[in-house]
Amino acid sequence: MKALYLDHRPILRDDLPEPQPGPDEALLRVRLAGVCATDLALTRGYAGGFRGVLGHELVAEILSAPAAPDRAGQRVTAEINIPCGHCGDCAAGRPSHCRQREVIGIRGRDGAFAEYLRVPLANLHPVPDPVSDEAAVFTEPLAAALQVQQQLAVRPGQRVLVVGAGRLGQLIARVLRLTGCDLSVVARHARQRDLLAAAGVPWLGEDAVPGAWADVVVEASGAPGGFALARHAVRPRGTLCLKSTYEGALRIDLSALVVDEISVVGSRCGPFPAALRLLAQGLVDPTPLIDARLPLKRAVEALDRAARPGTMKVLIDCRAAGAPAGG
Amino acid sequence: MKALYLDHRPILRDDLPEPQPGPDEALLRVRLAGVCATDLALTRGYAGGFRGVLGHELVAEILSAPAAPDRAGQRVTAEINIPCGHCGDCAAGRPSHCRQREVIGIRGRDGAFAEYLRVPLANLHPVPDPVSDEAAVFTEPLAAALQVQQQLAVRPGQRVLVVGAGRLGQLIARVLRLTGCDLSVVARHARQRDLLAAAGVPWLGEDAVPGAWADVVVEASGAPGGFALARHAVRPRGTLCLKSTYEGALRIDLSALVVDEISVVGSRCGPFPAALRLLAQGLVDPTPLIDARLPLKRAVEALDRAARPGTMKVLIDCRAAGAPAGG
Repeated sequence: MKALYLDHRPILRDDLPEPQPGPDEALLRVRLAGVCATDLALTRGYAGGFRGVLGHELVAEILSAPAAPDRAGQRVTAEINIPCGHCGDCAAGRPSHCRQREVIGIRGRDGAFAEYLRVPLANLHPVPDPVSDEAAVFTEPLAAALQVQQQLAVRPGQRVLVVGAGRLGQLIARVLRLTGCDLSVVARHARQRDLLAAAGVPWLGEDAVPGAWADVVVEASGAPGGFALARHAVRPRGTLCLKSTYEGALRIDLSALVVDEISVVGSRCGPFPAALRLLAQGLVDPTPLIDARLPLKRAVEALDRAARPGTMKVLIDCRAAGAPAGG
Repeated sequence: MKALYLDHRPILRDDLPEPQPGPDEALLRVRLAGVCATDLALTRGYAGGFRGVLGHELVAEILSAPAAPDRAGQRVTAEINIPCGHCGDCAAGRPSHCRQREVIGIRGRDGAFAEYLRVPLANLHPVPDPVSDEAAVFTEPLAAALQVQQQLAVRPGQRVLVVGAGRLGQLIARVLRLTGCDLSVVARHARQRDLLAAAGVPWLGEDAVPGAWADVVVEASGAPGGFALARHAVRPRGTLCLKSTYEGALRIDLSALVVDEISVVGSRCGPFPAALRLLAQGLVDPTPLIDARLPLKRAVEALDRAARPGTMKVLIDCRAAGAPAGG
């Protein structure tokens, strides 16, 4: 089959064997897959040098599933962590923190920039009919956006600031908006600002952020300067939620965190069912973030396109028929 | 009056005027005051160079109070933050974070290593009769220890690790023990270990701390190595509570905090009434931590004594009559 294979650099291959699903797995035919910042980081060697098929944001259909033959044809999206099921973290209900886990397209497991992939049935969520493929492919990052509220319980009376209006920041803004909180987003670029304005979210420039101002600050820029701005903006006893990873360690004044009694909360993967409910009810529409859509045979180009500054979401159309080239 | 005055270095003076209480203040005669790590840090220039009478852990008696003459003779302890009462933090119920606040013996306000001091009536808490002066002088640090639970809600089923068994770590261990949680404390020195064992708290050496082990880790060592050990010990989605300040900034891998979804919570001053209740009920006995007790005229020596490695608590007896020299 055809797939985008990472081996130090991403290569389009069409000599890969079709995956063979295990007894509790399904064989999926990928419809659409989304390019994420993590894919770009992996091509730079992040996470210990993954080697395999990239891609972990997907909507697909079940071709076959030995343990659930009646599910053939079902349209699904997939959680990306495949835990061992036996360790302490798994037993404690934290499978996404299992140290032995595989992660689709990220660690030990081929991903979705391919015609087919195999995924444990336990990872699959049916996509409700009203949700288009173009929306369903955002389920994984939308769930990650919702993890902020899964961890923090953002309250309607709070002043909340999101730092960063890239792919993830845009999704976080769209779900936080639903809480009724007093939300603003720090956005640098005109396109980011236009997207926020169209979604009804107020934006501001980074120079306009008052100090000790927000009850909750969500850092979604992934830049050291973004962390510094977020720290500046959070009030005493406020919460600083970190949604993005950083290259290298940052130097932080921990004493000031103690004196100001700040909570810093790291936040990662989130609840798929909630994301699918919001998509099905039309409460979040991620599709304006789609900047380009390229067929699988142009997947290398899709990664290049996604790496261009200011790009929101690039989709890869993985159906054999291909799709109209865009972008 | 006699007092220990900090002006670049701590000097015993006996030429200071007796403080004049304002209309909403009380004039206190200090009975006992405790030496804290913050006092030692202030002598090294911490917090922008305080100049004035040191000391913020105290038990005293009210000599006079214009607005509450009936309180004369009452034995009291005092909260240390004196907020402006008008700013946004004060209005939001965070007076201890008021940016304009004075802090007794730390910022803009003379402290308790003195025969007398003036304190707003609003800061005073009566000391219940069953609480000895020697126990009451620990109210402020015991309240700071309780602030961990004020912020985190430690649950009985949790595994909790305290890193550091100095003055503050010992008090934190004594209050966490009351929750029924599975508590251990990292202690380096024999005396620290003996004190913990006598209080019924299990200790372990730093080499014996498993990784990703504890639900909650409280960092009370104030050392960069202590932070690294605490980070090592906390499980994914666990909470790392920072109780101590550090000299200089630390370099931290924020990405790992995000991936492991760790919460880092800075924690400072705490609830005096709860501390006094625990002391009155005999549920916490801090007095075994007293290593020395020196009269006010030997206050410089008391600071030197407190700075010796391994020292727990040094008290300064501020009553004019003095007290038996110890240490």
